[in-house]
Amino acid sequence: MVFGLGPQQMGYDRAITVFSPDGKLYQVEYAFESVKRGWSTIGMKCKEGVLIAVEKKKVRALVEYDRVEKIFKIDEHIMASFAGLAADGRLLIDLAKEVALRHRFLYDEPPTVEVVAKAISDVKQAYTQHAGVRPFGVALILAGIDEFGPQVIMTEPSGQYMSYYAVAIGQEYASIQDYIEGRYKYDMSLREAIILALKALMEVSEEIPKPEIYEIGIIRTDEKVMRKLTKDEIAELISEAKKSSS
Amino acid sequence: MVFGLGPQQMGYDRAITVFSPDGKLYQVEYAFESVKRGWSTIGMKCKEGVLIAVEKKKVRALVEYDRVEKIFKIDEHIMASFAGLAADGRLLIDLAKEVALRHRFLYDEPPTVEVVAKAISDVKQAYTQHAGVRPFGVALILAGIDEFGPQVIMTEPSGQYMSYYAVAIGQEYASIQDYIEGRYKYDMSLREAIILALKALMEVSEEIPKPEIYEIGIIRTDEKVMRKLTKDEIAELISEAKKSSS
Amino acid sequence: MVFGLGPQQMGYDRAITVFSPDGKLYQVEYAFESVKRGWSTIGMKCKEGVLIAVEKKKVRALVEYDRVEKIFKIDEHIMASFAGLAADGRLLIDLAKEVALRHRFLYDEPPTVEVVAKAISDVKQAYTQHAGVRPFGVALILAGIDEFGPQVIMTEPSGQYMSYYAVAIGQEYASIQDYIEGRYKYDMSLREAIILALKALMEVSEEIPKPEIYEIGIIRTDEKVMRKLTKDEIAELISEAKKSSS
Amino acid sequence: MVFGLGPQQMGYDRAITVFSPDGKLYQVEYAFESVKRGWSTIGMKCKEGVLIAVEKKKVRALVEYDRVEKIFKIDEHIMASFAGLAADGRLLIDLAKEVALRHRFLYDEPPTVEVVAKAISDVKQAYTQHAGVRPFGVALILAGIDEFGPQVIMTEPSGQYMSYYAVAIGQEYASIQDYIEGRYKYDMSLREAIILALKALMEVSEEIPKPEIYEIGIIRTDEKVMRKLTKDEIAELISEAKKSSS
Amino acid sequence: MVFGLGPQQMGYDRAITVFSPDGKLYQVEYAFESVKRGWSTIGMKCKEGVLIAVEKKKVRALVEYDRVEKIFKIDEHIMASFAGLAADGRLLIDLAKEVALRHRFLYDEPPTVEVVAKAISDVKQAYTQHAGVRPFGVALILAGIDEFGPQVIMTEPSGQYMSYYAVAIGQEYASIQDYIEGRYKYDMSLREAIILALKALMEVSEEIPKPEIYEIGIIRTDEKVMRKLTKDEIAELISEAKKSSS
Amino acid sequence: MVFGLGPQQMGYDRAITVFSPDGKLYQVEYAFESVKRGWSTIGMKCKEGVLIAVEKKKVRALVEYDRVEKIFKIDEHIMASFAGLAADGRLLIDLAKEVALRHRFLYDEPPTVEVVAKAISDVKQAYTQHAGVRPFGVALILAGIDEFGPQVIMTEPSGQYMSYYAVAIGQEYASIQDYIEGRYKYDMSLREAIILALKALMEVSEEIPKPEIYEIGIIRTDEKVMRKLTKDEIAELISEAKKSSS
Amino acid sequence: MVFGLGPQQMGYDRAITVFSPDGKLYQVEYAFESVKRGWSTIGMKCKEGVLIAVEKKKVRALVEYDRVEKIFKIDEHIMASFAGLAADGRLLIDLAKEVALRHRFLYDEPPTVEVVAKAISDVKQAYTQHAGVRPFGVALILAGIDEFGPQVIMTEPSGQYMSYYAVAIGQEYASIQDYIEGRYKYDMSLREAIILALKALMEVSEEIPKPEIYEIGIIRTDEKVMRKLTKDEIAELISEAKKSSS
Repeated sequence: MVFGLGPQQMGYDRAITVFSPDGKLYQVEYAFESVKRGWSTIGMKCKEGVLIAVEKKKVRALVEYDRVEKIFKIDEHIMASFAGLAADGRLLIDLAKEVALRHRFLYDEPPTVEVVAKAISDVKQAYTQHAGVRPFGVALILAGIDEFGPQVIMTEPSGQYMSYYAVAIGQEYASIQDYIEGRYKYDMSLREAIILALKALMEVSEEIPKPEIYEIGIIRTDEKVMRKLTKDEIAELISEAKKSSS
Repeated sequence: MVFGLGPQQMGYDRAITVFSPDGKLYQVEYAFESVKRGWSTIGMKCKEGVLIAVEKKKVRALVEYDRVEKIFKIDEHIMASFAGLAADGRLLIDLAKEVALRHRFLYDEPPTVEVVAKAISDVKQAYTQHAGVRPFGVALILAGIDEFGPQVIMTEPSGQYMSYYAVAIGQEYASIQDYIEGRYKYDMSLREAIILALKALMEVSEEIPKPEIYEIGIIRTDEKVMRKLTKDEIAELISEAKKSSS
Repeated sequence: MVFGLGPQQMGYDRAITVFSPDGKLYQVEYAFESVKRGWSTIGMKCKEGVLIAVEKKKVRALVEYDRVEKIFKIDEHIMASFAGLAADGRLLIDLAKEVALRHRFLYDEPPTVEVVAKAISDVKQAYTQHAGVRPFGVALILAGIDEFGPQVIMTEPSGQYMSYYAVAIGQEYASIQDYIEGRYKYDMSLREAIILALKALMEVSEEIPKPEIYEIGIIRTDEKVMRKLTKDEIAELISEAKKSSS
Repeated sequence: MVFGLGPQQMGYDRAITVFSPDGKLYQVEYAFESVKRGWSTIGMKCKEGVLIAVEKKKVRALVEYDRVEKIFKIDEHIMASFAGLAADGRLLIDLAKEVALRHRFLYDEPPTVEVVAKAISDVKQAYTQHAGVRPFGVALILAGIDEFGPQVIMTEPSGQYMSYYAVAIGQEYASIQDYIEGRYKYDMSLREAIILALKALMEVSEEIPKPEIYEIGIIRTDEKVMRKLTKDEIAELISEAKKSSS
Repeated sequence: MVFGLGPQQMGYDRAITVFSPDGKLYQVEYAFESVKRGWSTIGMKCKEGVLIAVEKKKVRALVEYDRVEKIFKIDEHIMASFAGLAADGRLLIDLAKEVALRHRFLYDEPPTVEVVAKAISDVKQAYTQHAGVRPFGVALILAGIDEFGPQVIMTEPSGQYMSYYAVAIGQEYASIQDYIEGRYKYDMSLREAIILALKALMEVSEEIPKPEIYEIGIIRTDEKVMRKLTKDEIAELISEAKKSSS
Repeated sequence: MVFGLGPQQMGYDRAITVFSPDGKLYQVEYAFESVKRGWSTIGMKCKEGVLIAVEKKKVRALVEYDRVEKIFKIDEHIMASFAGLAADGRLLIDLAKEVALRHRFLYDEPPTVEVVAKAISDVKQAYTQHAGVRPFGVALILAGIDEFGPQVIMTEPSGQYMSYYAVAIGQEYASIQDYIEGRYKYDMSLREAIILALKALMEVSEEIPKPEIYEIGIIRTDEKVMRKLTKDEIAELISEAKKSSS
Repeated sequence: MVFGLGPQQMGYDRAITVFSPDGKLYQVEYAFESVKRGWSTIGMKCKEGVLIAVEKKKVRALVEYDRVEKIFKIDEHIMASFAGLAADGRLLIDLAKEVALRHRFLYDEPPTVEVVAKAISDVKQAYTQHAGVRPFGVALILAGIDEFGPQVIMTEPSGQYMSYYAVAIGQEYASIQDYIEGRYKYDMSLREAIILALKALMEVSEEIPKPEIYEIGIIRTDEKVMRKLTKDEIAELISEAKKSSS
C-alpha cells in the first residue's frame, strides 16, 4: 500500500466512473486498454467499397478457429468487427443487428451506417455516466455502403465515434495506422485496399501469413452486399502482398 | 500512496459529487478540465448576427474530418457547439434539439436561446447533485437570433450559464478570450466578427490555417436562419484575416 | 496521505452527509464555503420597505452583465437573491416561484415571505439528511412586504432560516455586516437604507462604483410591488453615497 | 492520517449508523454533540404547571430576535422546544403538531404528552437504524398538562425519551442541571419554578439578563392552555431572580 | 490509524454486517456490547411462576424514575423487559405486543411465550443479514405462563433465543448468573425466587437497596396474569433479602 | 493496522461477497468458520436407516437444555440439524419445512431428501452472489428415507451439497470423521450406527457422557417415520458404547 | 497492510467488477482462479462423436461419490460439465436445461449447442458488467451433436465462449491440453478419443486409476443421444489406456 503504487491504483477506478483531476474518466481509459489487447483489426474504405480485415492470433491449442467468427453481418450492407472483451463485443454486435432490424421495420428502409454506430455509441456513453455498471471494454468498427457512399466508423468505449478512411484497433493498432497512413489513397481499387490491409497486418505480426489466420469481409460500393473472402481468395492476395512488399 | 499525492487524489472525487472543504465540487471542477482539452471553439455576437467558429485539431491520421460535424443546427434560428467529452456533448446536442422541437409543439412558437440553454443547464445541475451519476464533461455554446436579438449563451458542466458577447471554450480558451477582448466591438459587421474569430484561432494555434480545419456557422439577425460557411467562403476569410493580421 | 492533511480530508465529507465527532455536518459546512465565494449581496428592511442590493463582480471578459440577473421576482410582493453555486441557486429560485404560485392557487391569497422561505428551507434540510444527494451550495435572501410588514429572511444551506433587519451573504459578508451594524436604524427611509447598502458594498470592494456593477431591487411597504432601480437611479444614489462617505 | 487522529475519525461514522466495538452508535453520539451546542433550554414541572425557558444567544448582528421563535405550541395543552440543528428541529416540531392534530382527529380527544413524544422518538429511532439517512441532530423537550397531570419529556437523538421533573439541553446543560438539582421542589409554585429556571440560566451565562434574551412558555395545571410570558412579565421575574440570587 | 488500533477498528464493522475471518458477525458482537451496558435485569422461573426483576440505575438527576417503565405487559400472561439501546427496545416491545394481539385475533387463543420470542428473533435475524440496516442493540427477556407451564426466554441481538431457568442481561450479568446458579432450585416458591433475584442484584450493585430502584413483575402459574409488585411489597422483600443475606 | 494483519483483513470481506485473487469467496469461507464453532453433529446412514446425533455443549448456566431442540422434523420421513449461527439455522429449518409442505401440496407425494436439500442450497447460493446480503453461516444435515433409499445430504454455506454415508459438522468435525471413517460399514445395523456415532462424539468431547447432553433422531428404512430416541434409550446406548470402547 | 501486498489486494476487486489500469476485470480473472481449482474435466470431439470425461478427486471421506454427478444431460443430444464453484455450476446447469426446453417449446426443434452456450454466456457477461452481483466462478463445457455436426464449446466466467476440438478445465488443465495437443486427430474413433482423454487424466493425476473415479459421457454422431459409460466399460478402457501408455 505504501511503496510502488501509482495514483491510478488508489481510487479513481473504483465504484463508478468518475473524473480524475485532469478531467479524464479513468475507467474509460482502462477499458480502452482492453481494446488494445484485442486482435489486430482494420477497417478501410475506398471509392470501390469497404473492407474489414482481422488477424486471428492463436491463443490456445485446439481451438476450432474456423468457427471463431470475428466479422459479423449486421445488415445486408453493413458489417462489423470489434477488439476488446469478447463477451462485451458479442453483446454489442447483437445490439447492432437489432438496431438495424428495428430500423428497417420502423422506416421500411435500410439504416445508414451512422444510425447503427450512434445507437451503439449512445449505449456506451450511458455506461460511462451511471453508477452500477462498468463501461464496455470494446471498440467496434462498422463498415458499410449506404446512401452517402462507403462508410467506416469506429466507436470507442467512451461512446465517441468518428468516420475514418482507414482505422485500426487491437494489438499494434498504432503501428498499423502509421503503415497505412503513408500508403493510403481513396482512389485505389478495393483489391489494392485489401492488399494494403494485409501488408499492414503482416508488417506488425510475427505469425507466418497463412489464409487460416485472416478473416476478411468486403462490401463493394456497387453491390452493397457483404461477403467474406474465401480461403483461396485470401491465399492469392497473400502471395500478391508478399510480392509487392519485397 | 504516501509521497507526491495531493489531497485531490484522496477522496473528494469518489462515489458522488460532494463538497470539498473549500466549498468546491471537485467532480465538477474536474469535468471542466475535460472541457479545457476540447477543440478551441468561439461563440460571438454582433448587431448583425451570431457566429460559432471551431478549429478541428488533427488527432488521428485518416479521420474523415469532413464528416466530423462540430456545429449543430438546434432549430432554424439556433445553433450549438461544445468542447469536452464528445459522447457527452452528442447526448446534450440531441437533448437541445428535442427541447426546441417540444417547445414548438407545445407553444407553437420558436424557443428563445435561453429556453434551450436553461433546459440543458437544469439537466447538468441535476447530474452534479445526485448520486449514481457523474457530471457532464462538456461546455456548450448556444448561439441564435430570437425575439430579444442576437444571443450567445455558454453553459458549464456545473449547470451555470451566462450570456456573452464573445466566449471561447476548449484548448487555449483563455488566450483566445484575451485576444478578442481588446478587439471586440458590438457594432462591427458579422464579417468583421468572423475574421476576428479566425484571427483569434490562428493566434493560438500552430496549425497552418486551411479551410479544412475550420467549421463556421452563422445566423444573420435579419434572416434568423442558420447556415455553415463553405470552404470557399472560409478560404477567402482566411486570406483576409492574414492580411489584417500582418 | 500522511503529512499535511487535516481530519477534514479523511472521511466525513464522503458518501453522505454525516456527523463529525463534534456534531457538525461537514458537507453542510463546506457548502457554506461556496456561499462565501458568491457575489456580495445585501438584504435590508426599514419601516418604509425592503431592498436587495448585489455587486456584480466581473469574473470573465465579454460577459453580457446586463443580462445576468441576480435579483428575481418571486411574486408581486416578494423578491429573492442568492450567493453560492449559480446552478443550485437558479433551481431554488424556480422552486420559490412555484411555491408562491401554488400558494395563490390553493389559498387564493398572496403567500407571506416566511411561507416561501420555509418551503425552500425544508427542501434544503432534506438534502442534508438523506443519502444520494449533496446539500445545496447556496444561501438565499428573500425580501418582501406581507401582512406582517417588511420581511427579510435568509436561508442557509443547512435549511435553517432567520429573520433579519439586515443581512449580507457572499464575499466579505462579515465586513459588510459589521459596517451596517453600527449605522443601521429601522426608522430610516428606504432611500437612506439603499445608500447605506451601497456604502457597505463600496467599503469592501475594490471595484470602481459604477451603475453597471450594481443590481438593486426594492419593494415599498405602501406599494407592495417589487421593482428594480434603473441605471440612472443607481447613478444618482452612488454619487449621494460617495458624498456622505467622505 | 497517521498522527493525532483518534479511532473515531477512521470509520464508524461513515456511510450508515453502525455499532462501534464498545457497542455505541457513534453517529448518534456525534448527533448529541450538536445538541450540546444549541441554545440553553430548560423544561421544568411543578404541581402548579409546566414551563420551558430558553436563553437566546446573539449569534449574528441584526437578526430580528423577536421573530426567532424557540418555543412552539404543539397543541392547546402541549408546547415544545429543541436544541441542536435548527432545520432538524423545525422538521420535528412540524411533525409533533401533525401528530397532535391527527390524534385529535382520530380519537376525538387531546393527545397525552407521551403520545407525541413517542411518535417523534420512533421516527428518531428509525433514523438511527437504517442506511441512507443520518440521525436527527436535536433533542426536544415536550411540556404539557394531560390526564396524568404535568408532564415534561425529553427525547434524545437516539430515539430514547424519559420523563423529568426538570431537564436542561443545549449549552451548559450539565451546569444548569446541577444548579437546579439542589434547589428543585415539586411543590413550589410555578412562579418559583420560573425564577429558578431564570436563575439557572443567569448562573451559567455571561449575557446581561434582559427580557429580550429570554423566551418563556408556561401551562398552568388548572388552565391547560399554553401561553408565552410577555416582556414585562419576564422583566419583573428577572429582577425578582436577581434579588433572590444575591 | 497506525498505533493502538486493533483489527476490529478497521473494517468488519462498516457498511453491512459481514463475517470476520473467524466466522463472527462483528456488528452483532458489538450490538451485544450495548446490551452489556443496560440496566441489570433478571428473568427467572420456578414451579410456582415467573418473575422479571430490574434495578433502575440513576443516570441523570431529576429523572422521574417512577414513570420509567422497564417491565412491559405483552399479553395477560406474558411480560417482557430488555437491556441495551432504549429506543430499539421500545420498538421490539411494541412489536411483541402486536404479535400477541395478532395471534389472538388469528387463532382465537393466547400465544405461547415462544411464539412471541420467535417472531421477535426472526426480525432480529433479518437485521443481521441484510444491508441497509444495523442489528438491534437489545436483548429481551420474555417471561410468561402458557400451555407448557412457566417460560423464560431470552433473545439475543443475533436473533438466537433459548429457554432458561434463570437468566440475567445488562450490567454485571455474568456475576448475577454466577450468584444465582449455585442457589437456584426449580422447586422453590415464587417468593423465594424473587428474594434470590433481589439478593443477586444487591450483590453486584453499589446502590443502597430501596424500593424505588427496583421494578419487579410476576406471573403465578395458577393465575396466568401479570402484575407488578408494589413499593410496599418490594420493601418487605428487600428486608427479607437483607436478613437472609447476612 | 500495520503489523500482524494478513491480507484477509483488508478488504475482500467487505461490502459484498467478492472473489479473492486466488478465486475464493472469503465471506463464504468465513461463514464456514462459524459452522466449525457449532455443536458437533453427525449424520449417518446404513442399510437399515438414517440417524442424526448431536452433542449439546453447555454454553451457559441455567439454560433449559431439554427445550433446546437441535434435530427437527422436516417431513414424516425427513429430519434435519445444523451447525453454525443459530438464528440462520432456524430460518433455513423453517424454509425446509415449507419446501416439503409445498412439494406435497403441488405434487401430492412426499419430497425426496434432495429436493429439500437443493431448495435450501439454491437460496444459500443466491446469498453468496448478490450484494446487500451476507451468506448463511450454517451447514445443514438432512437425513431421510425416500424412494431411493436412505439419504444423508449436507449443504454448505456456499450452496454446495453432497450425499454422504456419514458426515460431521461443528466442533471437532474433522476428528469425528476420521474416527468414523475407519469403522464405518454400510451394512451395519442402525443400532450399531448409533453406537458408532456416540463413540465418535465421546472420543472428541471432554464432557461426561450423560443422556441429557445427546439428542438423537432416527428414521428406519422400513418405517420411513422420524422419531427421537428417549433418554432411556440413549442411556442404554451410552453404556453399550462405553463397553465396546474399552 | 504495508509490506508484501501487491496491487491486486488493494482495491480493484471490491464492490463491483471494474477495470484495472491494464484493462482487465480482476473479479473475472479471480473467478477464473476458482475454475482452476475444480476437478479436471475434458471435452473432446471427433468425427464419430463427442465426449466429456471427469476425474472425481476424493475431497472428503465417506462422500457417496456414486451420487456425485458431474456430467449432466441438458437435452437428448447435449451434455455439459463444469469446473469451479459447485453451487454456481449447478445454477448454470439448471439454466442450460431450461434454455433447451424453452427452445424446443418455442421453435419445435432441438437447440444447437451454440444456442445453449450463448444463453449461458450472456448471463455470465451481464454478471461481469453490473453492480450488486459477482461473476460466476465456473467454466462450462457443452458437448453435443447438432445440425452442424459434433460440437464442443467452453464458456468462461467472462462470458466469452469458443468452439474447441478438445479442451480441458479444472486442475492441471494446461498440462492436460499439452498432452492432448500432440496426440489429437479429428479422424480418430470415439473409442480412441476416450482413451486419449483417460490417458491425459492419468498422466497428470496421482490417483490410482479406478473406474469409480471417472465419469464419462458420450454422444455418437450417428445416434445423437447422450449416455454415460458404465463402470465396466470404463474399466475396460482404463486397462486399454494403461497398455497403450506403456
